[in-house]
Amino acid sequence: MKKHDQDFMKRQNRLTVFEIIKHQQPISRASIAKQTGMSPTTVSRIVAELAEEGYLLESEQVSAGLGRKSTLLEMVDAAVLSVGVELDRHQVNIGIVDLQGNVIAMSQYPRSVEESPEVTLERVGTEIDQLTKSNEIDCERIIGVGVGLPGIIDNDTGEVMFSVQLGWRNVRLAERLKEITGYDVAVDNELKAKALAEHMKGAAIGSQRTVLLGFGNGVGSAFIMEGEIYRGRTNSAGEIGHTTIDPNGMLCDCGKAGCLQTYINIKSLLSEANKIRPVRSIEELFEAKKAGERWALHLIERALMYMAITINNVVCMYNPDSVILSGELTDKFPEILDEVVDLCYSKYVWEPLRGAFRILKSELHEQGVVIGSGLISQNCFFALE
Amino acid sequence: MKKHDQDFMKRQNRLTVFEIIKHQQPISRASIAKQTGMSPTTVSRIVAELAEEGYLLESEQVSAGLGRKSTLLEMVDAAVLSVGVELDRHQVNIGIVDLQGNVIAMSQYPRSVEESPEVTLERVGTEIDQLTKSNEIDCERIIGVGVGLPGIIDNDTGEVMFSVQLGWRNVRLAERLKEITGYDVAVDNELKAKALAEHMKGAAIGSQRTVLLGFGNGVGSAFIMEGEIYRGRTNSAGEIGHTTIDPNGMLCDCGKAGCLQTYINIKSLLSEANKIRPVRSIEELFEAKKAGERWALHLIERALMYMAITINNVVCMYNPDSVILSGELTDKFPEILDEVVDLCYSKYVWEPLRGAFRILKSELHEQGVVIGSGLISQNCFFALE
Repeated sequence: MKKHDQDFMKRQNRLTVFEIIKHQQPISRASIAKQTGMSPTTVSRIVAELAEEGYLLESEQVSAGLGRKSTLLEMVDAAVLSVGVELDRHQVNIGIVDLQGNVIAMSQYPRSVEESPEVTLERVGTEIDQLTKSNEIDCERIIGVGVGLPGIIDNDTGEVMFSVQLGWRNVRLAERLKEITGYDVAVDNELKAKALAEHMKGAAIGSQRTVLLGFGNGVGSAFIMEGEIYRGRTNSAGEIGHTTIDPNGMLCDCGKAGCLQTYINIKSLLSEANKIRPVRSIEELFEAKKAGERWALHLIERALMYMAITINNVVCMYNPDSVILSGELTDKFPEILDEVVDLCYSKYVWEPLRGAFRILKSELHEQGVVIGSGLISQNCFFALE
Repeated sequence: MKKHDQDFMKRQNRLTVFEIIKHQQPISRASIAKQTGMSPTTVSRIVAELAEEGYLLESEQVSAGLGRKSTLLEMVDAAVLSVGVELDRHQVNIGIVDLQGNVIAMSQYPRSVEESPEVTLERVGTEIDQLTKSNEIDCERIIGVGVGLPGIIDNDTGEVMFSVQLGWRNVRLAERLKEITGYDVAVDNELKAKALAEHMKGAAIGSQRTVLLGFGNGVGSAFIMEGEIYRGRTNSAGEIGHTTIDPNGMLCDCGKAGCLQTYINIKSLLSEANKIRPVRSIEELFEAKKAGERWALHLIERALMYMAITINNVVCMYNPDSVILSGELTDKFPEILDEVVDLCYSKYVWEPLRGAFRILKSELHEQGVVIGSGLISQNCFFALE
């Protein structure tokens, strides 16, 4: 086994111990060793590190029958907090997240679309400061910051490779935000963060293989397998919006023709709508449909069909047990969900897989990315030695 | 941790020890424990089981400097063989596979398309018998049979849920073939078997995330992640042939319209060709193209474009480091590969991922499924206690 693999396994073991204690507390060292097959020495070493750092509490317990004492371990929940940040085109959400993924304080503020990375990150620093102060949060307890945003993110280095939505390219976000705040910073794609949150606290608790779909200004997906984000080689797995549907289709902003997202994303829908008459928002488009305007009905029905096709395509590729629908379109117009589900079962999902998965609605909404980013920051922290 | 998860971890540990010894032999117990983080007790228990069953050899070695003795472990390669079987529409391939995935004997014979499962399986039993006899193989060494075939397979029970290519539905293949041969039988989808073989012995050695694509009588994919087959919930992951490309497209035999495979598979190509003039085989179609018949050129060019689109779509979804092209189309007409690669890089692969993966050619060809099925049988055997 290479050095790299050994380091990986060490980090993995530390994270496993952390996760087991978090979910099964109170629990004994022996029980952790038994469950994981790790050596008692390895378990004790990791537990000692976590205890020394103040994240674990030990308590003695006398078992009823035999009168033997055993020491049980618990996380000091209150000892660990992280900050979760969602950077979106028009808005920034910041929350303080505890070990169980609860948001104990949150703030939101608008962001102007042209804002430079530097201005955005300085403002994030200031807002984190204010949020902790106004909620009297002990900053010693904050172990790091996680940031979720749309785009291709190098989650190892914390660099934003590029984000069409924010108009950013090669921004060393983790590095700069650490300089500003002093905290360690983890950065990830917003849908990956949101999917992790839905798996831990939302619609997909207990699922082994969850796909989260995001329908909004783009179309994307994230895949959680056995509790972990599937990232792929360059953290780009799940970019279903750029799968090609029609080589003769509309141009996508990526330069290819007929990308799936050109049929569904809000920008494309508005651009199509404006061929008929001025429509400034997605709400106006849905109002036109309600008012019986046939072109609006047609446009929205086509989008719903492609949402069903998106579900079919991820289900064929990942064969998940759950598909979660999220994003601006389904959040603002929840009434479309039933229609999409009907289209899936009546027509668009490959028949052998129709009974093999559930279609769920996102439960965490605008808190999803904040919670997920906070959890990613905690995972990075506990995986490091 | 649930009982189910504990059993899973036990099997996983046994398989890990087996894999480490297989790839790093000779190796000490201590080194296995160190690399995996398993307890010395766990490692020793597993090693004792494997040794008792005759699969491990122990040797004493005196280390140069300190004069301390250590015991090293090796697999008794010759002690383990398995049978790999590929069931195809027109042909059956059977091979004897050793621990390293070498084929030490092989036979092939034609199969008639209408043959019933019972007739096919009885013939497989007879052929395995003959193959071992004519090669003087000690049947005591054969630990099981693996069967790979196209279709949806329940790999837990060894039942063929259905196979369009073979025309089978709900065939309890493992159960019946075990009755016939006496061996334990593992059954899996052919592309999943082939991908595992290419990862261990063929084009994708050392890859962390490999997608194998099969272009032939259908279109499918299989995904190997960190050395393991990604199966999904019902062992159906990778069914890219039934992702929808055009809701107004041609009908697929699955009953949906516009499935990806309707643009590429051999049956569809021939059915389109026969609208122009009688064409009995894919070879004739390629000859027509060579002879400069424009309709044939058009048909084949469209297929190549959709092969490039297929590559884009799997790359967007799985973000792999390697994509292997396999199947009848690329095996028979290797000249199309360069053209497909050009189309990928010039046009059809999403730009941010163009540099993130290699396109490879299958190296194992008609042995791939046999080797992979043999290895799957071995993995099942060594994972069991």
